Amino acid sequence: MAQDDHQDEDLMLADNPAEEEVRPDDRIDDERLDEENTLKADYVRSVRDALEAGDKGAVYDLVEPLHPADIADLVELCDADERVELAAAITDLMSSDVIAELNDYVREDMMEALPAEAVAQIAEQLETDDAVQMIEDLDVADQQAVLAELDDEDRAAIESALAYPEETAGRLMSREVVAVPEHMTVGSLIDFLRENVDLANDFYEIFAVDHLHHPVGTCQLSWILRTPRNIALSDVMKRDQTLIPVALDQEEVALMFQKYALISAAVVDESGRLVGQMTVDDVVHIISEEASEDALLMSGAGEGDINEPIRDAYGSRVRWLIANLGTALLASAIIWYFGAAIEKLVALAVLMPIVASIGGNAGTQTMAVSIRAIAMNQLTEANTGRILWREMRVALLNGVTIAVLIGIATALIFTPMLGAVIALAMVINIVVAGFAGVMVPVMFERLDQDPAVASSVFVTMITDSMGFFAFLGLAVAAGLAG
Amino acid sequence: MAQDDHQDEDLMLADNPAEEEVRPDDRIDDERLDEENTLKADYVRSVRDALEAGDKGAVYDLVEPLHPADIADLVELCDADERVELAAAITDLMSSDVIAELNDYVREDMMEALPAEAVAQIAEQLETDDAVQMIEDLDVADQQAVLAELDDEDRAAIESALAYPEETAGRLMSREVVAVPEHMTVGSLIDFLRENVDLANDFYEIFAVDHLHHPVGTCQLSWILRTPRNIALSDVMKRDQTLIPVALDQEEVALMFQKYALISAAVVDESGRLVGQMTVDDVVHIISEEASEDALLMSGAGEGDINEPIRDAYGSRVRWLIANLGTALLASAIIWYFGAAIEKLVALAVLMPIVASIGGNAGTQTMAVSIRAIAMNQLTEANTGRILWREMRVALLNGVTIAVLIGIATALIFTPMLGAVIALAMVINIVVAGFAGVMVPVMFERLDQDPAVASSVFVTMITDSMGFFAFLGLAVAAGLAG
Repeated sequence: MAQDDHQDEDLMLADNPAEEEVRPDDRIDDERLDEENTLKADYVRSVRDALEAGDKGAVYDLVEPLHPADIADLVELCDADERVELAAAITDLMSSDVIAELNDYVREDMMEALPAEAVAQIAEQLETDDAVQMIEDLDVADQQAVLAELDDEDRAAIESALAYPEETAGRLMSREVVAVPEHMTVGSLIDFLRENVDLANDFYEIFAVDHLHHPVGTCQLSWILRTPRNIALSDVMKRDQTLIPVALDQEEVALMFQKYALISAAVVDESGRLVGQMTVDDVVHIISEEASEDALLMSGAGEGDINEPIRDAYGSRVRWLIANLGTALLASAIIWYFGAAIEKLVALAVLMPIVASIGGNAGTQTMAVSIRAIAMNQLTEANTGRILWREMRVALLNGVTIAVLIGIATALIFTPMLGAVIALAMVINIVVAGFAGVMVPVMFERLDQDPAVASSVFVTMITDSMGFFAFLGLAVAAGLAG
Repeated sequence: MAQDDHQDEDLMLADNPAEEEVRPDDRIDDERLDEENTLKADYVRSVRDALEAGDKGAVYDLVEPLHPADIADLVELCDADERVELAAAITDLMSSDVIAELNDYVREDMMEALPAEAVAQIAEQLETDDAVQMIEDLDVADQQAVLAELDDEDRAAIESALAYPEETAGRLMSREVVAVPEHMTVGSLIDFLRENVDLANDFYEIFAVDHLHHPVGTCQLSWILRTPRNIALSDVMKRDQTLIPVALDQEEVALMFQKYALISAAVVDESGRLVGQMTVDDVVHIISEEASEDALLMSGAGEGDINEPIRDAYGSRVRWLIANLGTALLASAIIWYFGAAIEKLVALAVLMPIVASIGGNAGTQTMAVSIRAIAMNQLTEANTGRILWREMRVALLNGVTIAVLIGIATALIFTPMLGAVIALAMVINIVVAGFAGVMVPVMFERLDQDPAVASSVFVTMITDSMGFFAFLGLAVAAGLAG
């Protein structure tokens, strides 16, 4: 994003290089950024102090040297009320690049605080995909108000993007593509690129299309730069390219980029016509989001964004806690059933949470491994049997190890028989946990449900119940509480 | 990877386009790939059947149309003993591209099965960074044997990469960079690129350097293609570029690529000289690995790779289970302390796991959110206070909700007093869980430890102990078991 603007400037100033600003290395900047490239707390403190003192000039001078991505970080680090003041103090630094880099929630907040014309003005500066991202979360009335302020071309582009479902290639793609006929020579292609000032500034591939606008090949810019002018594009391009259907879900798009190591790829509509492209810089965010969301989904933390409104965070998390309350009640019912035994031998109450808790941990381990393997397309119908068998062996090894440790400790502190009971219960529960840790996510995947969302509740339910049942049941069977 | 080869071929065959193979769209291939771009179980089954029948010709015909990334997937989906047979049946399809795409463990296994010359032969076809990845996991003797087989230039490049610590930019960067003086014109740059056949095929940026080989600017290929021949590079390039220190950890490299939306970036040594570049296609794997490993680390599943040898998986997971056994024993000690109360009122044993379990869930939720925010550089010293306060409010809302539900149920089934006790214990434990869920990861981060690795054990220890202690302690204090 930042590059576009700068590049624009450079092209404009091409005959006056002296005006160019020289900032040799403002990324590794000891005053403001620490060694992890994060804004330093002291620096943020000084900006906030200047804000509080109402010294807009000082705020501006402090913020001015920052990269747009760092300005976005700074806005996020401020409290909600400080953000508005900050934006007011640095209006001309709040460029479209900063807006595009902002966290979704923070951006939505700020957009809602601005009048429709101001939002439209920002949207016009953004590339279509960034503008769509900015507008899609506004409520319908605000969205209409913003769209009404846009010029016809921008409005048409954004409306056509909004016509596709959220999180599909059609929503996310950029509509600016360099597409030329395959018989064009490298020389005339370069001339075409030099003459057409309207083209996008940053692109990484040229797409060759036939007369129906169907892509027939793709050509990296480096190949073009290394080829003599008289050679035709058809002799340099690669014909078997990865095409992205316009309706493809963003998660699948991200997996394709990863799998085939793509920099950009053509997006085609239902009839195979080239309608846009996706570039890796847009996909990188999706890859990281999709990859990191499993930890959040498994813990039931919803979006898990620290900028999410408290009400939303509460809503998504409490639902999960209530589901887990249900599974905890089931476990309690099992304990209740064995209440008489516990009354006779209180050691059972002391030891029973150990069996349930370690089983739960073992189940979570296997489940995390399975969910990741499913997400990476490494665990499929073709190898479920082998992976299950592998996990059962790991579970047996884990179960025996933990059983020996807790069995000996229990035998020494309580009785050898109780030691034997807890050891056996532990092996049973860890093996059951291993089985559930693979099969529960696999089953959700087969049912076309996201395994990361629902597996945890079921696996915990199984390991908790089985933990109490195996331990208390074996104890009673062994006559320990007779 | 696949693109390189194809491109090479095209350049060679430029005067004979008829020889070019036309595969219009082998990615969306209904026979072999399902709608998620994964190999179909039926297809994998048929390959394995042909392998079992010893019909190498049939195996070859089945595999031949696949993309190298899909061949790598197919190898991974086979059992360990089938992999060797498969590789033998399709030797000339097992290209360097396939090897580069293989899972680390699977590749290591296969490399160890091959003689050193064969490994060296593959390494020579790979780009330096892929060759390094292939060789770095071999034991030292095998590594030396392979290096000895390489020609001097390749050996020097790989040895210099191996001299940098694992997971740093120096290990991962590619050494092939197009670096030219900034006063060069666009025209002579293009001529230079056309004449130098030794250059890498795929690159996305040109780096301008001074006489000390320090980078002074960077230029995307699209900018060059759109600029007249007589303009100097210095007038098109962007001067403030993101430089990556050669010793930077891969996680930080990945964050820089994400933050500044980079396609490629220059890597510089301690004295600021340009020594290589990193491109986004290499970083994408790191981003996805780093982002998805938190779920595994939090569950204590180690690498969590389904291709990891069972012994390694056992080793990393059992260590974690033993740590959790320790925390479970602490919780048991607390229950033991209240043993007399439980003997008098067995309902305490029935209800106590609920308080511990829901507290554990709430703690895991907050912890997952905090760990992600820390990883994304969104939770820093500058806003820890605000985020802690935010999480405490969410915890209070969650705590009160769950407390009301379980309190009423307990009052109805047991006694109102027991309902009040469990409700209060629940609020206390969920609020403590919220506090620990933020502060434990933050503390580990301050101590320069990965918060995802160790936080879970501590948070669980706190919520388990506090759950039993608050509930049983309050029950005794309320005279319920007197």
